[in-house]
Amino acid sequence: MDLSKLEKIFGERFSTSEAIRLQHSHDESWHVPKSIPDAVVFPQSSDEVSIILNFANERKIPVIPFGAGTSLEGQVHALKGGITINSLHMNKIKEVNLEDMDCKVQPGVTREDLNLFLRDTGLFFPIDPGANASIGGMCSTGASGTNTVKYGTIRQQVMGLKVVMPDGEIIKTGSRARKSSAGYDLTHLMLGSEGTLGFITEINLRLHGRPDAISTGVCNFNNLNGAVNTVIEAIQIGLPLSRIELLDEVQIKAINKYKNTKHDEKPTLFIEIHGSPLGVKEQIQQFEEISKDNGLIKFEWSDQQAEIDKLWSSRHNAYYAALNLCPGKKAFTTDVCVPISSLTECILETKKDIKNSNIIAPIVGHVGDGNFHLILLLNPDDQKEVNEAKKINDRLVERALRMKGTSTGEHGIGIGKKDFLKTEKGNSVDVMSQIKKSIDPNNIMNPGKIF
Amino acid sequence: MDLSKLEKIFGERFSTSEAIRLQHSHDESWHVPKSIPDAVVFPQSSDEVSIILNFANERKIPVIPFGAGTSLEGQVHALKGGITINSLHMNKIKEVNLEDMDCKVQPGVTREDLNLFLRDTGLFFPIDPGANASIGGMCSTGASGTNTVKYGTIRQQVMGLKVVMPDGEIIKTGSRARKSSAGYDLTHLMLGSEGTLGFITEINLRLHGRPDAISTGVCNFNNLNGAVNTVIEAIQIGLPLSRIELLDEVQIKAINKYKNTKHDEKPTLFIEIHGSPLGVKEQIQQFEEISKDNGLIKFEWSDQQAEIDKLWSSRHNAYYAALNLCPGKKAFTTDVCVPISSLTECILETKKDIKNSNIIAPIVGHVGDGNFHLILLLNPDDQKEVNEAKKINDRLVERALRMKGTSTGEHGIGIGKKDFLKTEKGNSVDVMSQIKKSIDPNNIMNPGKIF
Repeated sequence: MDLSKLEKIFGERFSTSEAIRLQHSHDESWHVPKSIPDAVVFPQSSDEVSIILNFANERKIPVIPFGAGTSLEGQVHALKGGITINSLHMNKIKEVNLEDMDCKVQPGVTREDLNLFLRDTGLFFPIDPGANASIGGMCSTGASGTNTVKYGTIRQQVMGLKVVMPDGEIIKTGSRARKSSAGYDLTHLMLGSEGTLGFITEINLRLHGRPDAISTGVCNFNNLNGAVNTVIEAIQIGLPLSRIELLDEVQIKAINKYKNTKHDEKPTLFIEIHGSPLGVKEQIQQFEEISKDNGLIKFEWSDQQAEIDKLWSSRHNAYYAALNLCPGKKAFTTDVCVPISSLTECILETKKDIKNSNIIAPIVGHVGDGNFHLILLLNPDDQKEVNEAKKINDRLVERALRMKGTSTGEHGIGIGKKDFLKTEKGNSVDVMSQIKKSIDPNNIMNPGKIF
Repeated sequence: MDLSKLEKIFGERFSTSEAIRLQHSHDESWHVPKSIPDAVVFPQSSDEVSIILNFANERKIPVIPFGAGTSLEGQVHALKGGITINSLHMNKIKEVNLEDMDCKVQPGVTREDLNLFLRDTGLFFPIDPGANASIGGMCSTGASGTNTVKYGTIRQQVMGLKVVMPDGEIIKTGSRARKSSAGYDLTHLMLGSEGTLGFITEINLRLHGRPDAISTGVCNFNNLNGAVNTVIEAIQIGLPLSRIELLDEVQIKAINKYKNTKHDEKPTLFIEIHGSPLGVKEQIQQFEEISKDNGLIKFEWSDQQAEIDKLWSSRHNAYYAALNLCPGKKAFTTDVCVPISSLTECILETKKDIKNSNIIAPIVGHVGDGNFHLILLLNPDDQKEVNEAKKINDRLVERALRMKGTSTGEHGIGIGKKDFLKTEKGNSVDVMSQIKKSIDPNNIMNPGKIF
C-alpha cells in the first residue's frame, strides 16, 4: 500500500509509527483487535478529509473514522488495515448562535469541550454518554445518555451535517431551520451509520436553555423490582423527569469503591428534575410518594450544584468503576432497550441469568427510556468466560426482541452485534445494504461494520 | 396498459371510472393536473399493496400513493398516468398501548380519527396540519402543524413503519423501543420521501399524555413586528409554549368572514400553554408582560375547553377561510422556515413584496418554529397572476435560504418546489437521487415528484 502521496500532503499529521497505529486499533470495549491500520492521518478541514477519501476511493483502500475512541462495539477497528482518520485536530467550535440556540462544531469537539465553552451562555448541550466522547463519534453511533428521557438522543439535536462522501464529494444536509421537508432526510441517514457512509466534518446542533432550577435525588430500594416500578409509574403519570438512572447493588458497590462514596449498596435510582423552583420541589415530593409505595428505604435530594455534579460524575464513571471491580478484566456491555411496560420483567429475568453464571455484571440503565446495560466483566482470552457472557447477552437480546425492543439502544452494531441486526431487522437489512452499495460502491468506508 | 389482472383480484375495489380517476388526479393546491391515473385501487392490507407494487414493478407502471388528498405541492398528481393506490380502506387503529403511550395505525387513519378514538384514554396525538390529513400522508410529507414548538413534527412521533418496497417486498423499520442504534435509520429515510421510495402500510406512533391544564390566548398587536418579536422573546426566555401561531390582519379578516367571528382585524397571535394549573397561569402572565412591551392592544385568554376548541378550529380553517376571501380562486401556498432570529426581517420584507403586488395573500404561521405561509390567492389560468405569485415566492425562498433556512418547512417538494430543492440542497440531491435509483430502479414510485 503506497501512501507516500498522503504523507507528502499531511507531513507530521500523517503517521505510520507502530505505537500510533496500535493506539488506533481498538476502542474501549472487550473486542480484541485482529489487525491495525496502515496509517493514521489527522486532517484539519473538510477539504483535507476529501483529499484522503478521494485518494482511498481511487485505490479501494479502507478508511476508518476515529473520534475519541470510546465506542463499545469495535466501531473503530481496522479490520482490513487501511487509513484511520482521527478527528483530533478538527476540534473547533465554529459558531454559537445564542438567539437561535444552535451551534456549529467540528467532529473532534467532545461533549465536555462544548459544555465548557458554553458555560457562561445560559445554554447547554444535553447528550452525555458515559465517556467524554467526540461529537462526531456520538453522531456516528446515534449516542444518547442520561438526559434522553427529557431531551431525546443526539438524533434530536442534529439540525444538519457537512459530510465527505466516499468519493470525496462534500455535501451539506439539513439547514438551520427548526424543521424542513426538503427532500430525503440525509441527516438521519448519516446519524447512526457508524462511519460506513461518509465522514462527518461539521455538525449543526440544537442547544438548550439551562433550567431555572435543578434538583437531584438518590433513592435506595429494598429490591430492583420496586426501583424499576417507581420509574414506570412516574413516567406514566407524566412526571417531567430529566434524568432517571438505575444502578443495581453491584454497580453501587463498584462506585463506592472507585469514587470513595458511601451510597447504600442497594438497588438505587439517581433522578434529576428541571423546571421552576416551585415546580421542581412539588415534583420531587410526588416522586418520593411513588417511591414509598414501592419499597423505598431512603430518599436524599439536593439542589446544590456541587452535590449534583458529584452525583452525575459517579454515574458517568459507572463503566470505569465496574472495570475497577476486577482489575485486568475487560467489559462486555449489553445495550437492549424495551418498551417500558416490559422493563421490570426484562431486568428481573436477566438478573436471574447473571446469578446463574460465574460472571460479575453490574447493571446500570437509562431506565426512563427502557434502556439498560449489563457490564459483563471478563478476560477476553478466557473463551469460557467469553462464551458465558455471550450466552447471557444472546438470551437478553432474544428477550428484548420478543418484547418488541431492540438489541442496541445507543451503542450501535459495530462488529459486536452484526448477527443480532439480521435477527432484529430481517429483510430491511437488505435495503440498508442496497443504500450502502449505492453510496459506497467500493466499500471503503469502515468496511466490516454493521453488515 | 392491461390492468385486468388487478381488476380480477380487487373487484369493486379497483376502479377505472372517469369520475374516480379525475377525483384522484389532484390535491387541494393550485397545481393544475395535466393527466389522470389509469386506475385507482383501494387495498386493505400490506399483502394487497405488495401484490399491486409487484405487478406494477414488473411492468414498469407508475404507482401514486394517495391518502386524504390534502397535499399542497401536487404530491398525488398522476404525472404519467399509472395506478393510484388510495389508503381509504386501510383505516384501522390496530393497537393502542396505554402503558407505553404508543399505538399502531394503518395509513388511512386521519389525525381526527385517531384523536377521536383516544378521547377517553388521557392520551392524544399532537400533529395537526390544517387539513384532516391521513397519517400515511403526513408521514410522506414530513407534516407538522401548530403543536410543533412543544411536541416536534410527525418525524419525532414515528417509532417504526411497515413499508412495501417498490418490488413488493414488505419491510419493517424501527421498533417499539424509545430509541435504537440498530443499523441505518430507514424510518426517517421514508418519512418525508413523498411516496417515492415505497408505500407505508403501518405506522407505530408515540402518543402524549393530555396536560393537566390548558390555557389559550388571543393577542392583538399594533403591528406585525411587535407580534413576531413577542414570539421570539418568549421562546428565548424559555417559556414552554405549546402553540404559538401568527395570523396577519388579512387572515383574521378571512376567518371573521368564514367563521362569523369578531376578532380584531390586527396582527394577532393565538397561543396555548400546557402544564399544571398554577404553572400555566404564571406563564400566561409572563407572556402578557412580554406582549405589552411589544405594542399589545388586547389580550384575551381562556381555560374553557369549548373556547379553546373554537379558537383552534378557526386556526385550522385558515386555508379554507383564505380561499373563501376570493371565491373561485385557488391557493398557492408558500412554506419557508428560517432561524427564529431572522423571522421578523423575513416576514416584514415579504409583506412589502405582497403590498407591491396585485395579489391578496393572508399570512399565517407556526412562528414558534420560524415557519410561516403566504396563501397567495390566484386564478391558475391567469398566467399573469401565476407569474406574480411565483415571483413573490422566488424572492421569499431566496430570502429564506440566505438566512440559512429552508424552502419548505412542512409541505414538501412535490412538483411545486423541485427547482428550489436543487438550489437549497446542492450536490446532496445527487445522493438522494442515488438512493432513489438503488431502491426503485424502475422509477415506479410516484415518478416526477421531488426530483
